[in-house]
Amino acid sequence: MPVIRIEMFEGRTIEQKRACAAAVTQAFVDTCGASPQSVHIVFQDVAKSDWAVAGRLISDPKPE
Amino acid sequence: MPVIRIEMFEGRTIEQKRACAAAVTQAFVDTCGASPQSVHIVFQDVAKSDWAVAGRLISDPKPE
Amino acid sequence: MPVIRIEMFEGRTIEQKRACAAAVTQAFVDTCGASPQSVHIVFQDVAKSDWAVAGRLISDPKPE
Amino acid sequence: MPVIRIEMFEGRTIEQKRACAAAVTQAFVDTCGASPQSVHIVFQDVAKSDWAVAGRLISDPKPE
Amino acid sequence: MPVIRIEMFEGRTIEQKRACAAAVTQAFVDTCGASPQSVHIVFQDVAKSDWAVAGRLISDPKPE
Amino acid sequence: MPVIRIEMFEGRTIEQKRACAAAVTQAFVDTCGASPQSVHIVFQDVAKSDWAVAGRLISDPKPE
Repeated sequence: MPVIRIEMFEGRTIEQKRACAAAVTQAFVDTCGASPQSVHIVFQDVAKSDWAVAGRLISDPKPE
Repeated sequence: MPVIRIEMFEGRTIEQKRACAAAVTQAFVDTCGASPQSVHIVFQDVAKSDWAVAGRLISDPKPE
Repeated sequence: MPVIRIEMFEGRTIEQKRACAAAVTQAFVDTCGASPQSVHIVFQDVAKSDWAVAGRLISDPKPE
Repeated sequence: MPVIRIEMFEGRTIEQKRACAAAVTQAFVDTCGASPQSVHIVFQDVAKSDWAVAGRLISDPKPE
Repeated sequence: MPVIRIEMFEGRTIEQKRACAAAVTQAFVDTCGASPQSVHIVFQDVAKSDWAVAGRLISDPKPE
Repeated sequence: MPVIRIEMFEGRTIEQKRACAAAVTQAFVDTCGASPQSVHIVFQDVAKSDWAVAGRLISDPKPE
């Protein structure tokens, strides 16, 4: 209420997630008017071999 | 048809998930009128370091 | 904490959703040991023209 | 890359979403180090009759 | 088993969704080896005012 | 733009995911008219002990 789901490449540190959770919560509260206590954030790390753009896995080398 | 997705803190045992799947499916069937065979449930375990409330990771100590 | 997301065909009444929310929450609490207050349920109605099985939209007639 | 999904109660104006998208993107970029161009945000409005806490639809009156 | 969720801008016709469901199901079956009957696809139309890239709603004019 | 999320049982190889990403992207582009560069695909492997049908975990033996 709200629930904010952040899918991103794996590799961010817990310090980055900690700072991100604080900053994104504040950004939401400032602009949409909820109480901080109501804001849930869920991080979902995704391997580069599980994400594709333009039909190519991010973990694969770019074609020259 | 339906798909029920359950995001929760990691740590539940497979026995708990087994019982939960049976009970939630029954609850849905009883109240919404689908056949049990059509009900899919997907569990998604989330680490406490990947979930934040009020801008604070659940894995971090509460401020005094 | 947890968040339970229920995707289903549109057409259920609010009475069905009300009963479902109560029953699914109870089922989760009984089997996984959370407090009722922590359980969030989000319903997502899906039109039959937005759901396909075996490559066929549910809204389309079955081939004979 | 990342994809940020924000589920919230319906009713926010487009001005609030516009400000929220800008602020949340900046918060992510500042703390997690992606380029702004890579940040996707998707808003999902949820009716209060489609969200339940403690087994009760948010649209229903609280018990006294 | 699998469930494939396609979030895209609103505006595709039902003919496009019908063709897409058939083609994506076939693509999955050919490459990942499931039976067609097991493949579920769910379309989720998103308004351009609910999608932002680089902190700007897609429905807003690009800055010059 | 679009984002296609594929939840499936774990066990597919990276070669299968690579082929699947290419084929599903092409299928979407052919039928819905987006540029390949705009198509994101995210794979989510699910353990058979985290997926239930008819209230039974897929990892459990079928009742006789």
